[in-house]
Order: sequence, then C-alpha cells, then structure tokens
Amino acid sequence: MSILVVGSVAFDTLKTPFGERQKILGGAATYFALSASFFTQVRVVGVVGEDFTAEHEAVLTARGIDTRGIEHARGNTFHWGGEYGENVNEAQTRFTELNVFENFVPKIPEAYADSRFLFLANIQPELQLDVRRKMPRVALVGGDTMNLWINIKRTELLRTLKEVDILLINDGEAKLLAQDNSLVRAARKVLTLGPRSLVIKHGEYGATIFFGDGSHPFRAPALPIAEVHDPTGAGDTFAGGFMGYIASQPKLTPSVLKSAMFYGGVMGSFTVERFGPERLLTLTREEIEERFRVFRNLTHLD
Amino acid sequence: MSILVVGSVAFDTLKTPFGERQKILGGAATYFALSASFFTQVRVVGVVGEDFTAEHEAVLTARGIDTRGIEHARGNTFHWGGEYGENVNEAQTRFTELNVFENFVPKIPEAYADSRFLFLANIQPELQLDVRRKMPRVALVGGDTMNLWINIKRTELLRTLKEVDILLINDGEAKLLAQDNSLVRAARKVLTLGPRSLVIKHGEYGATIFFGDGSHPFRAPALPIAEVHDPTGAGDTFAGGFMGYIASQPKLTPSVLKSAMFYGGVMGSFTVERFGPERLLTLTREEIEERFRVFRNLTHLD
Repeated sequence: MSILVVGSVAFDTLKTPFGERQKILGGAATYFALSASFFTQVRVVGVVGEDFTAEHEAVLTARGIDTRGIEHARGNTFHWGGEYGENVNEAQTRFTELNVFENFVPKIPEAYADSRFLFLANIQPELQLDVRRKMPRVALVGGDTMNLWINIKRTELLRTLKEVDILLINDGEAKLLAQDNSLVRAARKVLTLGPRSLVIKHGEYGATIFFGDGSHPFRAPALPIAEVHDPTGAGDTFAGGFMGYIASQPKLTPSVLKSAMFYGGVMGSFTVERFGPERLLTLTREEIEERFRVFRNLTHLD
Repeated sequence: MSILVVGSVAFDTLKTPFGERQKILGGAATYFALSASFFTQVRVVGVVGEDFTAEHEAVLTARGIDTRGIEHARGNTFHWGGEYGENVNEAQTRFTELNVFENFVPKIPEAYADSRFLFLANIQPELQLDVRRKMPRVALVGGDTMNLWINIKRTELLRTLKEVDILLINDGEAKLLAQDNSLVRAARKVLTLGPRSLVIKHGEYGATIFFGDGSHPFRAPALPIAEVHDPTGAGDTFAGGFMGYIASQPKLTPSVLKSAMFYGGVMGSFTVERFGPERLLTLTREEIEERFRVFRNLTHLD
C-alpha cells in the first residue's frame, strides 16, 4: 500500500575520506523514497528549484516513485555541503543553502489523499503537523526530527509528536529530546510524548525499537562495513526500508515490525557503500534478500 | 573442562550515580572466575595482601572456584578507586594502589597444569606471555589487555598476542591497537597479529566476534538496561561467560562460539545491575537461561 513521504529533495556536495561529489541528488525524502520503492508504491511531497532537471526527477520516476507532489519553484534547490572525517559517524556541515526549501509549504496533491502510510521526514515540526492533519485517514504515521528542532522548536515538536505513531531518531537525538543520558531511560521518556513505538538508530551498531505498551524491545544489527564511502542518507534509507516493508505487509504484527527493522538496516547498509544514493540505483530485490540473510546470520544462533 | 584465569584479585572503591561502595571485592580475575563458575571448573592465579580475609576468599570458594593459586603476600591487596558519571561507559580513576600486585609474578600450582583453557586477564603482557608458555598443553587461550599496555608495552604485547587464540577487547582498545579508526578495519588488522578470533565489546551495544579465517562475523546484543548501577567488571564478566560456556562444551563449533557470545552478554548484563560482583553471588543457572531467552527474543526474527 502506498506511502507518502514529505521532506527535502536536495543537492548535496560531499567530501569523505573516499572522495568528493558536487551537487549530487540528495535530501531525506529522496533517500526515503528510493529505499521504500523496493517494497511499495511511494509518493513524494517536496520542493525543488530551477536547477532540478528532468534527469534528476527521472532518477525517482525510474524507480516507480510518484513525483507529482514535487513542486517546482523559482530559484535554486536546497543545497547542503558536508564533510566527513575519519569518524564517518559525524558530519561537518560546510554550508546550508536553503534556497526554495526556506519557504516550503507542503502541498498534497488530491491523488495522494488515499495514501495509507505517511512519513514525515526531518522538516520543521509545524509543517510536519500541518501535513499530518491534512492526512487524517492514514493508518500509520512515521516521523523523524533533528537536534535543531529539538533545541529551537521544542514546543512545536512536542505537539507534532502527539500525532506520530513511530518516531525514528538516533541516539543523540533521543537523549536530547528526553534530556536524559541513559538511552533506555530516554526511550521510555520519549514514549510518553506520543509515539507508540520508537526506533533509535545507533549508526554502526544497528538500531533498537522500543514500545510504549511494555513489549520487549528488539535490536537489529548494522552490517560491519570496513569502508563506509559516504554515510549521507543512511538514516533516511533505513526509514524507507522500515516503513516500506511495513507498507508492503497486510498487517502490522510484531513479526512484521522485527523484519522491518532488519530491512531498514539492510537498506542503510547498501547506501553507505557508495556516494549519495548511487548504490540504491543499481540495487535489486534479490540483493536485498541476500543481505537480509547476511543480517540474519550475523545475529541468529541457528 | 577447567579454565585457569590469571589476573587481578582486588578491592574496589566505587562511586556511581546509584551509590558508593568502599573496598569491595573486585579485580578482573574475580569477575571472570565468578562468571565462568556457572559453566565450568575455574582455577585462579593471582596475588592478595593481608587485608584479604578468609571471608573474601570464601566468596570464590562458595562458587566452587579453586583458589589454591591465589598467593597471599605481605602488604595490602591491589586497591582501585573509580567513579562513573552519568555516562557509565567511562570510568574516572580516582586512585590506583598497586600494593602487592606491583611485583606480582604468577605462580602456577602443580595441580593446575592440566587446565584445558587459559584466560590471560589484563595484566602486563610479559607476565601474560610467561604464563602462556608455562601452560603449553592448553587447548585454547583467551586474553585481554588495556590502553596502558597498548601504549607503553606495544612490543611486548605484540609478542604475547602471537600466542593468544581469542582476544577480547573493547572498541577503543581495538582501534588503538590497530591504529585505525574504522572498527572493522581495526578488527582485520588485529587478526593479523596472532589471534584467530577477536571479540570486540561495544558496551551497551553488545559485542562482535570477528574471525581470521574469513568467516562472517557474529553480533551478540547487550540488554537495554535503564539503570546500570555499576559497570565495573562487565567486560571480565563477559569474558567469563564466553570462555566458561566454551569450556563446558565438548567441541568448539561455530554454533558454540555464537552461544558463547550470547552467554557473555547475558553474564555482563547481570553484573551491571548491582554494585561490584553482588549480583553474581545470588545468580542461578535458571536466571541465566531465562535471560539467554530474552537475548534471543531481542535479536531473533522468529
């Protein structure tokens, strides 16, 4: 069933110990959509500028992604410049040119109204809430956020969180949001803020899903990778695999959630193998299933 | 089959956000021995001072541990003072009184000569090598080390590593030893230094075993724990569960190694629930098996 993702469609200029790329396709919604497209029908709401060409859009449509919700505005596309040192877990922002993204007001095409799933990628919490309220019929809402909003828009974010079913954030964000340095206590606190489930991503150590109803948490591994070429988008790719797999299943059972955690990790592991979303463009469902088996072998006793 | 552990038997004075303890039983060999004693026969070689009473020794013998190799020397027992802040992953040393440990020369009782397994806890690498050479008939040698030796006794440590089968260290130690900031590359480098297998402990994220023969790595989780009362000894307890389980099995198969990783994590998860080795003293094999099932549910898809 279809997922609507709302978030940034952007260009990234990246430098890592493995090389550099100028103005390549990026953005949270892009990574999410490409990743989820291996599992289900994906629709994108975002905004791009005049420098976003038909070739760029074709990267998405080639994967069957519905891009009718991508607004073309006057000016340039959001452009982020970042650098990773030896510790690929931490990006250093070199520049952030918001451009058309600065005044982004998500507009949801009529044709998207029947989307069953909604993913609110990392944008301003008020915009997330606005979109969520425009989609009252969705069955499940996933969301992301970042330190910036936790720090400067806490009130707005807390309002948004009340209407998010599954929040996907990383260790640092969870601790900052909960104002608690213990990851597990932070998880418990976040689960009192609205979300029924919380996925905390630990980077190279995998991810854990915590549940508000007291069910036992579940941990998915990350693949031990010697050479992370570019970690950009790994978190959004995780979210795309996670939500995409859920959307592909008839019912959301505990077993589906566990597999979704694995698919999230699997998709993330591909993204970091190459620059930007390059690896996702050549990926096949067979490779995904093969790596799913690797993840299983990595963690299962038998 | 029996394991011989050589290492510190000590007193710890600890402060954590959950409380304080003065001069409680500690030391790497103590944690290792108590943990391994749930699985197999354990023998200890170490040194203590005159402040180490019969009651202290009885803590070990009550668990069936053979303490004939604990030498009683003139002076005081090794005494470590440490403090943990909100981030329980990092200890701050307040004092280190080596006392009788300063001139420790391991003496192996005749009765220990038939030990099948040997664990070289974190002591000076020359002493580790000396012990290892005195035990030519052991089937498997596990070892630990620390940043101090990696920094100031690298040559000696590299010599010792050539005669260790399984090295158990943490993320920081692996990176320092390999002089590589990528965990997976560091693992590969360490595996060229001697050990056939390398267990890297990630604290609250679990542990990964890497193999020199190119076999796929395996990851065991750590239990998500909201309130770590005292992390002291968690790593040695892990090693004791890991080696103890291996020693209890007729053959070292890949399946045994995987379960050993789980038992290591299980034992570590108990230790941190209380101060010092307190939790290990009331623990039962049934509780261990129950938590093993929790670890399985935490990671297994079905």
